[in-house]
Amino acid sequence: MIDRVKGVRDFIGITAVLRQQALESIRKSYELFGFEPIETPSFEYLSLFTNKSGPEIESQLYSFEDKKGEKLALRPEHTISKLRVVSGNKSLVFPLRAYSIGNVWRYEDTKKGRWREFIQADIDIFGSADIKYDSEIIACIDFAIKRLGIENYKINVSNRKILTSLMESLKVEVEKIVQVLREIDKVHKVGLDEVIKRISELIGETKAEKVRDYLNGKEIPGIEGIKDVEYLISDLKKNYGIEGVYFDRSLVRGQDYYDGSIFEFEFTEGELKGVVLAGGGRYDKISMKFDSDFPISGGAIGFDVIMEVLVSNYKNKFYKTLCVLSVDDLETSRKIAASLRKEGLVTDIILEDTPLSKGLNYCNSKKIKYAIIVGKRDLKDNLVTVRDLESKREMKFKLDSLVEEIKNLI
Amino acid sequence: MIDRVKGVRDFIGITAVLRQQALESIRKSYELFGFEPIETPSFEYLSLFTNKSGPEIESQLYSFEDKKGEKLALRPEHTISKLRVVSGNKSLVFPLRAYSIGNVWRYEDTKKGRWREFIQADIDIFGSADIKYDSEIIACIDFAIKRLGIENYKINVSNRKILTSLMESLKVEVEKIVQVLREIDKVHKVGLDEVIKRISELIGETKAEKVRDYLNGKEIPGIEGIKDVEYLISDLKKNYGIEGVYFDRSLVRGQDYYDGSIFEFEFTEGELKGVVLAGGGRYDKISMKFDSDFPISGGAIGFDVIMEVLVSNYKNKFYKTLCVLSVDDLETSRKIAASLRKEGLVTDIILEDTPLSKGLNYCNSKKIKYAIIVGKRDLKDNLVTVRDLESKREMKFKLDSLVEEIKNLI
Repeated sequence: MIDRVKGVRDFIGITAVLRQQALESIRKSYELFGFEPIETPSFEYLSLFTNKSGPEIESQLYSFEDKKGEKLALRPEHTISKLRVVSGNKSLVFPLRAYSIGNVWRYEDTKKGRWREFIQADIDIFGSADIKYDSEIIACIDFAIKRLGIENYKINVSNRKILTSLMESLKVEVEKIVQVLREIDKVHKVGLDEVIKRISELIGETKAEKVRDYLNGKEIPGIEGIKDVEYLISDLKKNYGIEGVYFDRSLVRGQDYYDGSIFEFEFTEGELKGVVLAGGGRYDKISMKFDSDFPISGGAIGFDVIMEVLVSNYKNKFYKTLCVLSVDDLETSRKIAASLRKEGLVTDIILEDTPLSKGLNYCNSKKIKYAIIVGKRDLKDNLVTVRDLESKREMKFKLDSLVEEIKNLI
Repeated sequence: MIDRVKGVRDFIGITAVLRQQALESIRKSYELFGFEPIETPSFEYLSLFTNKSGPEIESQLYSFEDKKGEKLALRPEHTISKLRVVSGNKSLVFPLRAYSIGNVWRYEDTKKGRWREFIQADIDIFGSADIKYDSEIIACIDFAIKRLGIENYKINVSNRKILTSLMESLKVEVEKIVQVLREIDKVHKVGLDEVIKRISELIGETKAEKVRDYLNGKEIPGIEGIKDVEYLISDLKKNYGIEGVYFDRSLVRGQDYYDGSIFEFEFTEGELKGVVLAGGGRYDKISMKFDSDFPISGGAIGFDVIMEVLVSNYKNKFYKTLCVLSVDDLETSRKIAASLRKEGLVTDIILEDTPLSKGLNYCNSKKIKYAIIVGKRDLKDNLVTVRDLESKREMKFKLDSLVEEIKNLI
């Protein structure tokens, strides 16, 4: 036998069903807010990624030569491909609301529990610098996550202008800013004191203590961006009814392209407490790399994390699918299946003579909730038995009213 | 600027919206018939494909080495990956109804108008040799295509046993059978006489004339498979109400793996007349290559062809999306958008002050059907204007009943 490649996955059964349901739900949420799909190819010229993200990215890419010797790479994220499309299309009308849901590939160290193929579900609004569009992105992601039935999370927000402005006011040397920000990002992991100690070594104690003041919530005059954060929090409450949004002063969210609002959805309960369900922010200057000039606000749901949360909650769920099992009248069973499907009811049927026990085993393996058992003895009295595989309860319905009864049942 | 790679595509705007709608519709149809998703990785070890399909397949594959020197390839179809999963999973309960919808990649000659990345939408039933499952596959695909609004097609069916049996009865040498079948497959293109002429050169005139008899509809005693075709046609009519199924005696459908029923959905109107929308058949012996032994019946919708038919019909369609445009009251506009979305109505909104003409232009570019125009003069009388961008008709609704009025409208 030949195995599956390391670091990628197969999905089958309950997990696969849940994944499709979650993907569809996210898509519907994005569409509800007026977002339209952008689909890009799975691979691009390697140079597109290395030109835009720097040559060091190649070590994380699946890059290869095609049969003509062209150097290609599987996309490691949606952003660069979307920017190629949007900046190359002069007929587009802004603001453009677009979503992209699909696989991305990264040559990651699999020991860390990371996957080499996974799904990202992005939304972006291209072409407006207005902060109200940041609200719209966050509200749309909030809607999508709530619609999946996930409620135990909080939204951390900040603005990249704040820390940039603080670094400038402290006259931190440009080449040290990235290192300082990286340390600030670790406050929740290693604690404030440890972070200040590390920063002191980089920029001296006096400046580090100013950073401590800011992280402790002290007003620092002349720092840009704080008003934006306050507006964002109040706007999300007022116009979308979203509470539970917090100014997280240590939020950095990666070192590159963000230059305005930034946000993270943080799960707050159980074993997965602390994981980031979604994140994003404003990146107004990135399009210049594509010889264009349009501001962008965007975000993405981490589909794998979402699935971890969902699967841990729904493991024992039965699906409201029906299965028609013939004990000894396949003709009638097929008629029943046809009439159920006509009403839009998801219906499986075993088309060969099968002992009842084997049929019920089949239903259980697929987490089908209702088995419709068609037997001669029942049919004599014009009846059909419906078995609820979850509660193990059995009901008898008249053949003529079966479809109606089942519609009431599910 | 860096271009897109040759032979692959971007989708944006109307086409992208239609693609997502069609994909979702196909998925729902497959699910209605009890099929569940199987998701496999985008790439496999190259040896999986070359072992199962023969080394000559490598010329059509995107194959590459990963950073550890492992030889991989992007999947050129779903079948082999699905067989790897199903044959390697001993806990599965048969019959297993599975669908796979996703990208496949082939290094094709782009001059022929073929794409190097495209979507295949497969269904398969693993683990039963019963011909009623062939009916179920065909009926499910028929349902999926009709649900997309496509009705101008016919279904051609045959059975691989027939031609195999005919070749055996004519004692055609094994190494010539493939060539003869390849010629028979061309009857619709080059005509019967030409095909018989070509076959005569391969197996002699006497035997070729027997093939002509068969293709002309003559009963040939002892030929296996004809009864199966007759059963399939009558079963599709009786149990699924499907008419328009024809025995196509020249149908071959590729040279390999099929060994039972075969079928093709052929479009019958307009410029695209003759194109194959979907096809498939029974391939009972292929699992042996995976050290397993389970029969399979399956089929696939050619998503690109389906999209060609759909796009040519729906080019000028307006989407029933709403867009709230503020002339001079953004606060009220945002409240309206929130209440529309609460009711599940797909709603876009421009969040900056924008002149009305620019707002309407935005709606037109996205094929949004209804613009909800919120202006001060209207609001004084507690009214809002709704403009139908398709008919250019304008309506005025009371602010309080707007959501209800719009629900009645769309």
